[in-house]
Amino acid sequence: MIKMEIVLASASPRRIDLMRLLDLPFTTLPTGADEALPPEILPEQAVKTLALRKARAAAQRKGQALVIGADTVVAAEGQLLGKPADRADAARMLRLLSGSTHQVYTGIALVGPDGEETFCRRTDVRFYPLDEREIAWYLDTGEPFDKAGAYGIQGKGAMLVEEISGDYFNVVGFPVSLLAKKLKRRLERIAFEQVY
Amino acid sequence: MIKMEIVLASASPRRIDLMRLLDLPFTTLPTGADEALPPEILPEQAVKTLALRKARAAAQRKGQALVIGADTVVAAEGQLLGKPADRADAARMLRLLSGSTHQVYTGIALVGPDGEETFCRRTDVRFYPLDEREIAWYLDTGEPFDKAGAYGIQGKGAMLVEEISGDYFNVVGFPVSLLAKKLKRRLERIAFEQVY
Repeated sequence: MIKMEIVLASASPRRIDLMRLLDLPFTTLPTGADEALPPEILPEQAVKTLALRKARAAAQRKGQALVIGADTVVAAEGQLLGKPADRADAARMLRLLSGSTHQVYTGIALVGPDGEETFCRRTDVRFYPLDEREIAWYLDTGEPFDKAGAYGIQGKGAMLVEEISGDYFNVVGFPVSLLAKKLKRRLERIAFEQVY
Repeated sequence: MIKMEIVLASASPRRIDLMRLLDLPFTTLPTGADEALPPEILPEQAVKTLALRKARAAAQRKGQALVIGADTVVAAEGQLLGKPADRADAARMLRLLSGSTHQVYTGIALVGPDGEETFCRRTDVRFYPLDEREIAWYLDTGEPFDKAGAYGIQGKGAMLVEEISGDYFNVVGFPVSLLAKKLKRRLERIAFEQVY
């Protein structure tokens, strides 16, 4: 195995759990990257831009490392939803998602001494219709407040979801199987270039 | 809240974890129900039949309880896959699932003093193409051996899955959000009948 430090530029417990599935040693280095985006940006572009910003910020502080940045947004009815500002904002997001299908986009950036690459996956998520009592119940779980779109599919948020189409883990934190394949290819290339 | 004991007729750690999402007190009572089925049975019928058999076996030992039984099979290329018999059987199943889409059916039975009901959900799961090295790696994780179709989507098996269509939790153990709705309706009806 090649000697290249792998760094996850995130402090998300969900992303850290997913990274552990990869059976690769890694460290975490969350960055306070600027999350401002131009208005009218497409969701794919938004998540790839923010993932790259996070990975670059961590890479600047690590020399010989392959850094992974990730960002997730929810797109619903022409709006991009990040993390809710407060309870009222979370309630607004959940009302928007109720009874319809929205898109979850996660962008990944891999930044290393050999270059940068970004990719993105989309998953469609259909919510059950939610009444105000169900929304209040879900807000009371405390889950919405650190999550794009104000829900977490892997917790009590599972109760809100009727079905999905695409990669489940893309909704949880990032598309772990796709990342594994991209990382493997990248590490093989770096190893090859180190030898030849 | 109505006083009716809720019993899960299963010892599956994954189903027990999902039950905990419901915020309802419950006990578990696994049964050694006969899993033999007539040949040529349709997958929906197979999982509903086995779920009902499990729930009835537990209900016979519990008087005033609402018992939940569940059963999952994987259907691929006209075959029904349950738990693999051994490593060779697990390898055979994984080869069958490699690079194609299969169906996961979970049947649920609710058996109580007020009657029986069964329902079923189907989720489509698309696997990445797997080579023999990847199959050997996955067998070595030990995950395949207690799982229908020889994989668990919530563990290292996540690496095998390209995308799904339907309820993710239906693949993990049972459709938890649908079960929550059915249970709520059932408990409300029982409460109503107890009062009137």
